[in-house]
Amino acid sequence: MSTGLERFSINQMTVKQLSLPELVAACAESGVPGVGLWREPVQAYGVEAAAKLVRDAGLTVTTLCRGGFLTATDPAERAAALADNRRAVDEAATLGTDTLVLVSGGLPPGSKDLHGARERIADALAELGPYAESHGVRLAIEPLHPMYAADRCVVSTLAQALDLAERFPAHQVGVTVDTYHIWWDDHAPEQIARAGAAGRIHTFQLADWTTPLPEGVLNGRGQIGDGAIDMREWKGYVEAAGYTGAIEVELFNEELWAREGREVLAETAARFVEHVIR
Amino acid sequence: MSTGLERFSINQMTVKQLSLPELVAACAESGVPGVGLWREPVQAYGVEAAAKLVRDAGLTVTTLCRGGFLTATDPAERAAALADNRRAVDEAATLGTDTLVLVSGGLPPGSKDLHGARERIADALAELGPYAESHGVRLAIEPLHPMYAADRCVVSTLAQALDLAERFPAHQVGVTVDTYHIWWDDHAPEQIARAGAAGRIHTFQLADWTTPLPEGVLNGRGQIGDGAIDMREWKGYVEAAGYTGAIEVELFNEELWAREGREVLAETAARFVEHVIR
Repeated sequence: MSTGLERFSINQMTVKQLSLPELVAACAESGVPGVGLWREPVQAYGVEAAAKLVRDAGLTVTTLCRGGFLTATDPAERAAALADNRRAVDEAATLGTDTLVLVSGGLPPGSKDLHGARERIADALAELGPYAESHGVRLAIEPLHPMYAADRCVVSTLAQALDLAERFPAHQVGVTVDTYHIWWDDHAPEQIARAGAAGRIHTFQLADWTTPLPEGVLNGRGQIGDGAIDMREWKGYVEAAGYTGAIEVELFNEELWAREGREVLAETAARFVEHVIR
Repeated sequence: MSTGLERFSINQMTVKQLSLPELVAACAESGVPGVGLWREPVQAYGVEAAAKLVRDAGLTVTTLCRGGFLTATDPAERAAALADNRRAVDEAATLGTDTLVLVSGGLPPGSKDLHGARERIADALAELGPYAESHGVRLAIEPLHPMYAADRCVVSTLAQALDLAERFPAHQVGVTVDTYHIWWDDHAPEQIARAGAAGRIHTFQLADWTTPLPEGVLNGRGQIGDGAIDMREWKGYVEAAGYTGAIEVELFNEELWAREGREVLAETAARFVEHVIR
């Protein structure tokens, strides 16, 4: 009998209060088959050790978050960013995931040049795409909500992300479809179709939109079902575009982080079944 | 000799710490020729009295803010919103401005239906457009930044605003072009051209984008020159589209509100000349 969790993946940040072994144990307990991992806690645990831990537990690593931050103009900063992204690819390969999520980066201090920043991302992808391919990893450009355009990610829509991705082969560069960032965009459904037709939907992530937004607007991603987003509708769009992969729930939310992590995981899995699958 | 302020208009909210007579006196003192007024302080002062005050001072009322909030599903709420918008048109006509800015409204409580909300706005405009025309007033749909889509305005892009406006004659319904809401959008320049070609740029407003955003994201509109937006570039787009009207600076900013209002007005006028005109 289906549990409804067959395609569910929990992004590690959703329950960052859990250590990696606690997370793996909680997934086994709740019947969660997939995890999206983050570089910092994985590095702290040890990349090889983390890979063995999740592999031994039979968990699928659906994505590694995250590479990116490719908009610097300073040559030394730029070289450091590229080197760091190559390490991220190496880590993804070691963890056994085929997808590295990219948050592209904001405007350099004092700059007002969005177009130039977007072009520097393309230049970086030309170097990183082949490197990723040679390690069996695909890069997934994540358009972030336009409220992050200045300080975090100058790629604000799926259309912009695809304009960048389409300069490269689909098995090198695709996109992340995350409901939180695109739900307001009436052109997003047609862009999902565009992405799917080219095999460029490399991951599908969910978070709900709740208000008021907190100061800094980073940690207000709402629990599934608590906000304004029709999750079934967006699942329908990616499925109509041919996406059959994992569906990852990625929440940054101070209230959820203050609670017991296993309870949050169980709640998130239940919400997923209620609002996405059933 | 040009002061650089010939097209400058100060939106009343920028210096809301000033009473209406104080604002009018400060404008005379700083050589500011235009004001954008808000309904609440104007009503508190008396609409006729406010009209006389600004007229006697030789000030141009560039806009009245704001009508809108047209997305309710409840019939009584909807009728009340339409009646309130007719009053806003009356007030605009009394004040001698030809432009009423509309903030369209967010999702009704519990709703996830952006498309339906946008259609209810169109239905309301069909009633309000002819009423406004008969009073010599144009409605200016303001697309608000996508971060307001759930709770304040389901119209998030210039393209969406024009899709709505174009169902009606340009002298009834056009758009507000506000840098704060559209600066991230790489399609906005072509949409400004679309709006200008049809005579639908009914007002042009400025605010800069500064981070971090404050809680609730309402009162973080940055002083001109403090943020990520290239004001001359956007002025260039509206002028290339044929716009020759007033340029209104509208800031909601707790730090500016805490300061002496005349000083803020003088600073804003100076920033306008420095970052927009010279």
